[in-house]
Amino acid sequence: MVKVRPRLYKYEEIAEEVIHLIKSGTFRSGDRIPSVREMSRQKQMSISTVLQAYYLLEAQGFIETRQRSGVYVSTRIPSAMPEPDISSPELDPGKVSVWQLVKTILRDARNPKLVPLGAAFPNASLLATQKLNRIQASIGRRKREMSGAYDLPEGCKTLRVQIAKNSVRAGCNLAPGDIVITSGCTEAINLSLRSVCKRGDTIAIESPASFDVLQCVEALELKALEIPTHPREGISLEALEFAIQHTPVQACVVTSNFNNPLGSCIPDTKKKDLVTLLAGHEIPLIEDDVFGEIFFTGRRPVVAKSYDQKGLVMLCSSFSKDIAPAYRVGWAVPGRFREQVEWLKYTSTMATATLPQLAIAEFLASGGYHHHMRGIRRVYERNVASVVQAVERHFPEGTRTTRPTGGFVVWVQLPDGVDSMELYKKSLKQGIAITPGYIFSSTDRYRNFIRLNAANWSETIERAMQKLGKCIVELT
Amino acid sequence: MVKVRPRLYKYEEIAEEVIHLIKSGTFRSGDRIPSVREMSRQKQMSISTVLQAYYLLEAQGFIETRQRSGVYVSTRIPSAMPEPDISSPELDPGKVSVWQLVKTILRDARNPKLVPLGAAFPNASLLATQKLNRIQASIGRRKREMSGAYDLPEGCKTLRVQIAKNSVRAGCNLAPGDIVITSGCTEAINLSLRSVCKRGDTIAIESPASFDVLQCVEALELKALEIPTHPREGISLEALEFAIQHTPVQACVVTSNFNNPLGSCIPDTKKKDLVTLLAGHEIPLIEDDVFGEIFFTGRRPVVAKSYDQKGLVMLCSSFSKDIAPAYRVGWAVPGRFREQVEWLKYTSTMATATLPQLAIAEFLASGGYHHHMRGIRRVYERNVASVVQAVERHFPEGTRTTRPTGGFVVWVQLPDGVDSMELYKKSLKQGIAITPGYIFSSTDRYRNFIRLNAANWSETIERAMQKLGKCIVELT
Repeated sequence: MVKVRPRLYKYEEIAEEVIHLIKSGTFRSGDRIPSVREMSRQKQMSISTVLQAYYLLEAQGFIETRQRSGVYVSTRIPSAMPEPDISSPELDPGKVSVWQLVKTILRDARNPKLVPLGAAFPNASLLATQKLNRIQASIGRRKREMSGAYDLPEGCKTLRVQIAKNSVRAGCNLAPGDIVITSGCTEAINLSLRSVCKRGDTIAIESPASFDVLQCVEALELKALEIPTHPREGISLEALEFAIQHTPVQACVVTSNFNNPLGSCIPDTKKKDLVTLLAGHEIPLIEDDVFGEIFFTGRRPVVAKSYDQKGLVMLCSSFSKDIAPAYRVGWAVPGRFREQVEWLKYTSTMATATLPQLAIAEFLASGGYHHHMRGIRRVYERNVASVVQAVERHFPEGTRTTRPTGGFVVWVQLPDGVDSMELYKKSLKQGIAITPGYIFSSTDRYRNFIRLNAANWSETIERAMQKLGKCIVELT
Repeated sequence: MVKVRPRLYKYEEIAEEVIHLIKSGTFRSGDRIPSVREMSRQKQMSISTVLQAYYLLEAQGFIETRQRSGVYVSTRIPSAMPEPDISSPELDPGKVSVWQLVKTILRDARNPKLVPLGAAFPNASLLATQKLNRIQASIGRRKREMSGAYDLPEGCKTLRVQIAKNSVRAGCNLAPGDIVITSGCTEAINLSLRSVCKRGDTIAIESPASFDVLQCVEALELKALEIPTHPREGISLEALEFAIQHTPVQACVVTSNFNNPLGSCIPDTKKKDLVTLLAGHEIPLIEDDVFGEIFFTGRRPVVAKSYDQKGLVMLCSSFSKDIAPAYRVGWAVPGRFREQVEWLKYTSTMATATLPQLAIAEFLASGGYHHHMRGIRRVYERNVASVVQAVERHFPEGTRTTRPTGGFVVWVQLPDGVDSMELYKKSLKQGIAITPGYIFSSTDRYRNFIRLNAANWSETIERAMQKLGKCIVELT
């Protein structure tokens, strides 16, 4: 039944609009709102209609007129809406979409009241924010013209040179022209997928896989074929080969170094075999290397791209995990699909912001990046070890955990009966954020798994791990 | 026939790789390259193999060893590759793809040796780069934590509040929660299209239309249905209605205020009729308002979104034309498709860079934006008038030109026989960049049209217009 509402007078309409703007938070207590004259011109209504509206609003206490200054939202009314609640609502895995859950996890990661074992956000104190902001400020002063103009879709050459140089350590021989700068690794993967697949195609991915990639695959209406993945050695080549022989696979997405959530690192010879296997079927390999620089062993693991003979490997990475998530600078090395990726970049976001690129390029060129990385690798190694030990100490028998040699996430298999969604809700009530295993697969095979962000370590986290252990016991 | 090449020794392979890195510009004259020990570890080859490779490279003059310092690219060899040539190659419309032509036009716009009548880049001296860089530097110091962390997909609330406030002048009553921040207007349009269309769908667009939008439509494998558009009053509603009645249209993309390249501005009542027409068929309207703030008349034209009753209008805009192209900050107001757009944003680029958003928010909140806009509108009005007058003065009889009341592009119809691609090549040789009409349509109906960027005016441009006139005469 449609409610019939009496038609409003013009002035009442204007008054209602202003009230809506105040209630929604667009105009807040003490904000100046358009003057009678401005509003009349904007709405193409007479001065007297607007006057009537404002008179009504003032009578109702919404606005106040200050002599010779203008019209303001009353300071006596409570400032607009309350800030949005960032603690989590009741979530039911049967009813809530994965996207809703992901949104909650991303929000929770920014809530200082929660112990941050949820989203895979880097340790804030291990970023290079201060240094980079300073470099950026300096470039902003020195290179005004350059920092103002649109960049080309492929990105700044100075940054591409630095990335090419740095890739030598990962076993690559890249020219700056091989690289396309993107808005983070997310855009690199998105564009790579779009350049080789179309709606309905099947993509082979690791299982468990990063929920970012799973969501991207779903948004592009691709089908994810989940391949068993070993917690230390990565994707099973036997299973992948079997899959390829039995179903048409358009592309394969793999995090060869420090898979999220497993932390697995594919051994070098196996990387070569992976590239050879896929090349034999002309299947592009999209390689996510976003954690590759955060290694705990003596040597930076090479990327699968280093074995690429046919231009079929599309390397994707970013500076978001090691120095600057908020700068949104990543890159793709798309091999033979370079032109297509550059075109899609142009039609998707035109170009990446210029100043952040220039700042990161300078940070790399000066040696600051390498110095920074040497320092943080050791801290991450310690923190990951601490979290793993806390799992061993506090979680009940039957728990299994990974022992990653890089990155900063730990994947925990809980005793069979424990539902990670229940644990997620229970732990949130205790002020602890974790990530339930459900969202690392499109099936529910990880219902008794959780991922812990091991980027941080402190006594608070120790205590949180203890509480988490108790919650798990209560759920078994 | 495959050339058989003798297999290289291991050390020759390493030497070849280093030479490739030098020739491609990754390592330049004087750059330090990995030490023998580093290279041996990286490549997992013996020290003696690497030594042999480096010995060979030194003998050939590619590298030099400096005692106790390391191995460097020789300073005697010419520094890597020459910088890429940014003047245009010979382009043949029959052979070159539109993307190649667009790339050339974007490159040419950054070439200081060319008179910039080509790409629709704003006048560099009318941007707010210096002020924004300064605000950004200050925020970078004051808000280190915040400027370091991932932003949420929807964007910073402070910026969304400011955009909502500013939209009142365009006739909208928006809550901050209605807005999703994007990486420029390009991303806003891309995500809007993706949220309501799928591959193969038909989209109604203005003709001529911005080549950015045409390229985006092509990249998403949509079909563009070009609707006749009046140079002053915008898209023909009769033609649009006829089209809708005869073919299924999934969405309509319109630049209601100052269409690029026409400069047309749809009158307010017609905007309302457009919204009503589409709403009657439940067709989403994607409204590009990127030039809306650069108006020459007394009042900011309203947006079609202001007449949206059903949440079907998806308003897209950015700060790229008026204050900061290189900051890549835009927004979408997707109405009932908000959730979908936010999700696609997350899967496409995760979030927009934080510092540029905060800087722009502060620029708006302080009133700096309005002050800036008041100043630049007058300059753009003068420059556009100067370019139009120069067309009248120097171009041959039979030429027709638009007289836009906002934005900064002028659309010129040349005498029938003139091929704009020929003119484009001819004028480039004289150091003048223009945009040929071909790329504003997927047909060749604008072969005798050109778009001129009228953002700048100077004696150099006056002389360029004179030369351009002569070129046209020679082609008639």
